[in-house]
Amino acid sequence: MNVVVRHAGVLVTCAGDWRPRAGAAAHDLGIVTDGAVVMERGRIVWVGRDTDVPAGLPDSPEVDAARRLVTPGLVDCHTHALFAGSRAGEFAMRVCGSTYEEIMAQGGGISASARMLREAPDADILEQTAGRLWRMLRFGTTTCEIKSGYGLSTEQEVRSLRLIQQLRSRVPIRVVPTFLGAHAIPPEWRYDREGFVRQVTEEMIPQVAREELARFCDVFCEHGAFSVEESRRILETARAHGMDLKIHADELASSGGTRLGAELGVCSADHLLCATRGDLEALRDSGAIAVMLPGTCLGLAKTRYAPGRLMAEIGLPVAVASDLNPGNCYCENLPLMVTLACLYGGLSLEQALVGVTINAAHALRLGDEVGSLEPGKRGDLVIWECDDYRDIAYHFGVQLASIVIAGGVVAAP
Amino acid sequence: MNVVVRHAGVLVTCAGDWRPRAGAAAHDLGIVTDGAVVMERGRIVWVGRDTDVPAGLPDSPEVDAARRLVTPGLVDCHTHALFAGSRAGEFAMRVCGSTYEEIMAQGGGISASARMLREAPDADILEQTAGRLWRMLRFGTTTCEIKSGYGLSTEQEVRSLRLIQQLRSRVPIRVVPTFLGAHAIPPEWRYDREGFVRQVTEEMIPQVAREELARFCDVFCEHGAFSVEESRRILETARAHGMDLKIHADELASSGGTRLGAELGVCSADHLLCATRGDLEALRDSGAIAVMLPGTCLGLAKTRYAPGRLMAEIGLPVAVASDLNPGNCYCENLPLMVTLACLYGGLSLEQALVGVTINAAHALRLGDEVGSLEPGKRGDLVIWECDDYRDIAYHFGVQLASIVIAGGVVAAP
Repeated sequence: MNVVVRHAGVLVTCAGDWRPRAGAAAHDLGIVTDGAVVMERGRIVWVGRDTDVPAGLPDSPEVDAARRLVTPGLVDCHTHALFAGSRAGEFAMRVCGSTYEEIMAQGGGISASARMLREAPDADILEQTAGRLWRMLRFGTTTCEIKSGYGLSTEQEVRSLRLIQQLRSRVPIRVVPTFLGAHAIPPEWRYDREGFVRQVTEEMIPQVAREELARFCDVFCEHGAFSVEESRRILETARAHGMDLKIHADELASSGGTRLGAELGVCSADHLLCATRGDLEALRDSGAIAVMLPGTCLGLAKTRYAPGRLMAEIGLPVAVASDLNPGNCYCENLPLMVTLACLYGGLSLEQALVGVTINAAHALRLGDEVGSLEPGKRGDLVIWECDDYRDIAYHFGVQLASIVIAGGVVAAP
Repeated sequence: MNVVVRHAGVLVTCAGDWRPRAGAAAHDLGIVTDGAVVMERGRIVWVGRDTDVPAGLPDSPEVDAARRLVTPGLVDCHTHALFAGSRAGEFAMRVCGSTYEEIMAQGGGISASARMLREAPDADILEQTAGRLWRMLRFGTTTCEIKSGYGLSTEQEVRSLRLIQQLRSRVPIRVVPTFLGAHAIPPEWRYDREGFVRQVTEEMIPQVAREELARFCDVFCEHGAFSVEESRRILETARAHGMDLKIHADELASSGGTRLGAELGVCSADHLLCATRGDLEALRDSGAIAVMLPGTCLGLAKTRYAPGRLMAEIGLPVAVASDLNPGNCYCENLPLMVTLACLYGGLSLEQALVGVTINAAHALRLGDEVGSLEPGKRGDLVIWECDDYRDIAYHFGVQLASIVIAGGVVAAP
């Protein structure tokens, strides 16, 4: 089955040498004016000017982009999209001034999500999460990472990762599962942290690796969650089991997580609000991607966001993701994160756009699969309502994605 | 033609004594569990529990809310939705660190919109603006104010207001026009401010009033725009011509605009980031509505937002609006403003919801027409994808409005 997208007024390919981009200018977007994309059996086979489309393509339905903007399908490289139930009550408490400690004391926080996940039947969790993935897709996301982490036990973590796998047959979005058993110390392990870390390293990781349930292992390295030493043990164990690594680092305070990530060679270090210049330079030298999650800063009403401009200045490749989660960022709108990364993170529009395409692909080790429009890559693209790529950031909070093609098939609307 | 909405799991009526609400708690939302709304010839004739729906309604098609949330249609009481062209280039300059002065020096700012408006044919302006109104409608807005202000000349201001009137036949949204001739000093009047103020007071206002082109007169009272004394002359002239008053006040600095508004008895004073407690108390005592525009704070990457919690504490009724405009807030998503007003403005969810319904109606002197679900009011309501009103703020940046009914007719999707 072939599909040809014709008459892309502005075709942003993000084509290049398939390496992560540190910084980006308009010319790094690989823009083709009046472009076209030919897809065969779900893959891109040709990209160029519309006037040069190869003749004699067999049985190729055409999608007319009507001179509008076309970009690669967006890649959301950090989400906690698999969850059950609502934490709207916490949101209400928070905006009225309650602290996280007060919310925790009333049974809120990650353990509330763990409780709701444990109590929900598989079918409910799948239906709720599929709804979120469809919403992401309509905003332009064609690849997304989903972390476990609301399990807080071996049984529920394994169940979560299996459910994440099952989502693949429900929504035409490419799903990348990440194991985040070390998301929080469960209440029942509060007085035996060591016992829980051993459960993660001795039970969960071996089983997740054996059943190939996740490509990545992530850990929430932060005061109040896992220490640098605990995080090191968990990530080293995961690496020994053949998993790639990620880390939630220096979100709430400068606590050494970014440095640990650099030392261990993580694929990405995420959040980074409080990382120092030296931390970020170490991360750059390690070859990792820095992931900004500005929606979470908004959801927590922060005035400090991750230092995107500094990252770009020192040559650290930046990705931008939604952090979609039920606690502090219930938002499937990845283009809104582009706006926030520009306004509050200091990224240029081009850097932010690279941050949700090719750099985000690299943050999932999928730089040779998605994130740009080039022959050989997956047929994932978005036709937008506008004809200017700057509108993705400028015209914010709305649904500008018009037609979303995933794997060479029109997936939305 | 009658319509009945059945099985509203949570029916937020905002019913009450039709006066502006200072502060709001959950019980002020007038919630009916498993509710229903009966509309006849575009008006609400009955609201109550679904089990009590009057029998024998003639020819009434039913809309099944399927146990979801139903609220009044939202009211966006401050927009500059009528404009031509894009200022995405300014956005790009701004996020890369350019100052407003630098942007102005390159021909940007309000005068860029004035130039694009002047050069655009009526049909283009109407088509672009109608697209924005449809987008607003799909996010739940059924009434919106639209200001002129990109005319900067009598001819173009009058043209703008006539175009705003014409939008009424294109989109099923109730449009309230506001005359904002005093939006900026046009470049050609830079050395004769007095001459421009006289054009506003001696030419524009008399013609606008004579032709009944706008209910409200607004003025941008701020350093760099119009002084308190200029604003006073303009607003007093408008009042003498029978117009109701609004004021853009104390957005960028504390400059006396809020006090002026209180003194003149404006219907609403808008922005108010820098208004002092004393200013806000004066506004409260005058009976005006305070309008928060948090999207503009976001669009300008501010860390300071209007002091919503203080307003609520001192008993000043607060409305929340989008400020949709091409310069610093290109966003039709009014529910996103609810989220921002909670997170950064300190409003409770209930206060913010009242702020985009009944209080916003009062900010347009439409408190007896729209903003709540009560017999006699216009048949404007929204059926949401969720069943919890808190989700409007909590689940942000997305399109949660599912079915929008305007004037008793299903208008979207």
